[in-house]
Amino acid sequence: MSNRSDPTALRLADIVARVGGELVGDPDVTVRRVAPLHTAGPDDLTFLAQPKYRAQLRETRAAAVVIGRAERDATRLPRIICDDPYLYFARVAQLFAPDDAVRPGVHPSAVVEADASVPASASIGPGAYVGTRARLGERVVVGPGCHVGAGVELGDDSRLHALVSIYAGCRIGRRAILHSGAVVGADGFGMARDGERWTKIPQVGGVVVGDDVEIGANTTIDRGALEDTVIEDGVKLDNQIQIGHNVRIGAHTAMAGCVGVAGSARIGRHCTVGGAGMILGHLEIADRVQISSCTTISHSIHKPGTYTGLYPSSDNASWARYTAWVRHLDRLADRVRSLEKEKKK
Amino acid sequence: MSNRSDPTALRLADIVARVGGELVGDPDVTVRRVAPLHTAGPDDLTFLAQPKYRAQLRETRAAAVVIGRAERDATRLPRIICDDPYLYFARVAQLFAPDDAVRPGVHPSAVVEADASVPASASIGPGAYVGTRARLGERVVVGPGCHVGAGVELGDDSRLHALVSIYAGCRIGRRAILHSGAVVGADGFGMARDGERWTKIPQVGGVVVGDDVEIGANTTIDRGALEDTVIEDGVKLDNQIQIGHNVRIGAHTAMAGCVGVAGSARIGRHCTVGGAGMILGHLEIADRVQISSCTTISHSIHKPGTYTGLYPSSDNASWARYTAWVRHLDRLADRVRSLEKEKKK
Amino acid sequence: MSNRSDPTALRLADIVARVGGELVGDPDVTVRRVAPLHTAGPDDLTFLAQPKYRAQLRETRAAAVVIGRAERDATRLPRIICDDPYLYFARVAQLFAPDDAVRPGVHPSAVVEADASVPASASIGPGAYVGTRARLGERVVVGPGCHVGAGVELGDDSRLHALVSIYAGCRIGRRAILHSGAVVGADGFGMARDGERWTKIPQVGGVVVGDDVEIGANTTIDRGALEDTVIEDGVKLDNQIQIGHNVRIGAHTAMAGCVGVAGSARIGRHCTVGGAGMILGHLEIADRVQISSCTTISHSIHKPGTYTGLYPSSDNASWARYTAWVRHLDRLADRVRSLEKEKKK
Repeated sequence: MSNRSDPTALRLADIVARVGGELVGDPDVTVRRVAPLHTAGPDDLTFLAQPKYRAQLRETRAAAVVIGRAERDATRLPRIICDDPYLYFARVAQLFAPDDAVRPGVHPSAVVEADASVPASASIGPGAYVGTRARLGERVVVGPGCHVGAGVELGDDSRLHALVSIYAGCRIGRRAILHSGAVVGADGFGMARDGERWTKIPQVGGVVVGDDVEIGANTTIDRGALEDTVIEDGVKLDNQIQIGHNVRIGAHTAMAGCVGVAGSARIGRHCTVGGAGMILGHLEIADRVQISSCTTISHSIHKPGTYTGLYPSSDNASWARYTAWVRHLDRLADRVRSLEKEKKK
Repeated sequence: MSNRSDPTALRLADIVARVGGELVGDPDVTVRRVAPLHTAGPDDLTFLAQPKYRAQLRETRAAAVVIGRAERDATRLPRIICDDPYLYFARVAQLFAPDDAVRPGVHPSAVVEADASVPASASIGPGAYVGTRARLGERVVVGPGCHVGAGVELGDDSRLHALVSIYAGCRIGRRAILHSGAVVGADGFGMARDGERWTKIPQVGGVVVGDDVEIGANTTIDRGALEDTVIEDGVKLDNQIQIGHNVRIGAHTAMAGCVGVAGSARIGRHCTVGGAGMILGHLEIADRVQISSCTTISHSIHKPGTYTGLYPSSDNASWARYTAWVRHLDRLADRVRSLEKEKKK
Repeated sequence: MSNRSDPTALRLADIVARVGGELVGDPDVTVRRVAPLHTAGPDDLTFLAQPKYRAQLRETRAAAVVIGRAERDATRLPRIICDDPYLYFARVAQLFAPDDAVRPGVHPSAVVEADASVPASASIGPGAYVGTRARLGERVVVGPGCHVGAGVELGDDSRLHALVSIYAGCRIGRRAILHSGAVVGADGFGMARDGERWTKIPQVGGVVVGDDVEIGANTTIDRGALEDTVIEDGVKLDNQIQIGHNVRIGAHTAMAGCVGVAGSARIGRHCTVGGAGMILGHLEIADRVQISSCTTISHSIHKPGTYTGLYPSSDNASWARYTAWVRHLDRLADRVRSLEKEKKK
């Protein structure tokens, strides 16, 4: 396992003091990291988040385990009892997560324009560029090779990993995490027909990203045509997502990899979109809608719930047999109708 | 709204002098930007491009409006009458679009090989690299952190935004716009089976891009295996598009985000491909073909027209009911046939 | 054709001496490159890999041809006879492939941390960054603008093209090729619900990539949550592929552009995945499975074979007729069942 650096050791008593929960067993048991039930060793804290893994609980070699209230007596190991073991695991993992040891200051090879505002607590990595009138908050990290365009604002504690590009005028909130290759604020895809050619429509809106947003590697968020593209607080975007111009994504919505959202779609709060979901343009999606993986949404959705459009695959021969009929479904339906008429005579 | 910088003010008379159209109303009315009907304020020029927004026209607070001939009397506001308000809007927006104020010259932190040809009017941004024998046209802009490989040619007035990568030997025409993260000329995906392993087929063709082409953020265009991959004049590619080796895309074809075109496909002129459209390899697509969003094209298309293969999504329960039948369509058809035979007896 | 530089000339006798095969005809015939049958000229070696191109063989202007044993007498041109002309072509093309003339050494504009291990044979390009404790093998090439994070290991003869990002702690084997915009080791998409918000699960696993792996432009491979994401030897990944955290891809598996593999999927050895194939999370795919283009895999596959789920597209009017029925398939099936019952009475 390639940990970024050696994690610290923590006593169970320390963990409970910081994260909460009820400790059953020796408070001085010491753990060095979190690990899944089946790979955990004597230095590890493990967790049981789903009942289906209860069999693994019996055989784990972990030093201690985080479990829900219903499982209080399912093990004799030292254990931390809590309401939501998975959330508890996330929080403990944050305690163990190695600090990336970013040094404040501007690397000598970085280029920062004279009128950019960069506090002493910020870190500008090797080869990074910070443009004119950019304003960086406290403890902002601009990774190696990043591009921060003119007038960009980055909120306190935001972090750009290496090789991120933010175009002029975009605003990113606090505690954002942007992964390598993310591009925020490239021109939206706007053009008008001019006889046999296309004329570009200048994209003069911006991108406004709220607080606590994570943007995955190689994800792209286009600037608006006239108004802004808006990503509200707490939105989580995985890798290789494309967000078109003038889209609005509601707070705390999460999207898995390879999702596409076409221009001017408005997506509600607390939604989830599975991997490779596609949302066409100019739609409205209500709050608390779940869209399954590989599903295309071509109409607005006004009610919370789960929506799916994933189509089956099969061995090639079976597939050839049934998909041959897809294209003839209307005729098949006609034949059924005509049998029904016949019957009525 | 995050405009890149303060736009200029223009009199309606000045606009008509530069873009054309017929002015009805006070020629001295001054506007500072373009805006949609429902958000426009007293400094804004707005436009009515589709009759369905006519109700908004009555309530707009804009200073003036661009409208079609049929709407000449639909408002009392100062107005510019023209054939195509959307195209007119695009042109006026270009007048207002902020100049990015790129300074000619090579930034001290950029690296330009001694035998590269870079005219005084070109701008090479911080940290950019221009390789040996590269030839840049007049007023070319190479953004911060870009990679311009050996022998690359960039035509007059082309612009690479930050962090674009152009591999050795690729040729880009005039007035091109390449957005951050675009990669032109990476190796095509070519390999031969060698027993249980793969042997790489060197990709020694190039990429040739015509004039007036726009290439979106994180879009990739692979170099050819033996011959070139060709993108003709006026092609517009949105973000995160993948173009395989030896593809040819005809002039003035436009593709929305997340499209994939597999190797050796030949796409005609004046085509459009909606978002996430997928075109399999070695196909031919005629001129003036429109491919809808989320549609897979697995056979050549010889006639102009619109082609679609987008499948419905539903609430999860309905979806489960109907897709269960997709895989059994051939058997359902058999049952209909057997009912038909029965009837004939 | 944009060759990267002028290729060398080779005698047929030299080629046979280095690559094998049986030469029929003048051993002193000299060729300068490989080319397809229909474009080859008098300096070119061509090849016949598929019988369907035999007609082109008669008309080719090539200097010589590589053909299979069955075609021994199908031409009078000087020819090389071998078992597998396509593989032979790949190997000859490697002889001709221009050397990129990478100079060993660290470019003055690169930044290499003091405790990184960089052998004299390695090449670190302009503006590249090599982090603390990174260990580079012999003849490794780190292209312009690349980011090599803390503790990264790159095996002998591996090459990173421009603007590649490798996060801290990831390990890449020997002879790897990574294309521009590839990102290895960004955080996997892991979070726990915390009431109405999301809490990030730190991703403390790494990415381990074997020997002879190629990773395409803008492809992303996420680091594991607790354990590593693993790409085994000889895997070939095209452009814009997304590999989620904790995925394992078996040796010599190849994936075409735009494929997505969701978290914790385990894919066998010697598999192929066509362009835009999507593999959902936590699945197992057996060895030697072929997944067709544009196919979604939502269940584990335990048997070798070809699996497909590509759905037809049509002209728009036909499509509208038949897809209207997809959503009503269950009712259509009910109607057939009711006709069948009727018949039995």
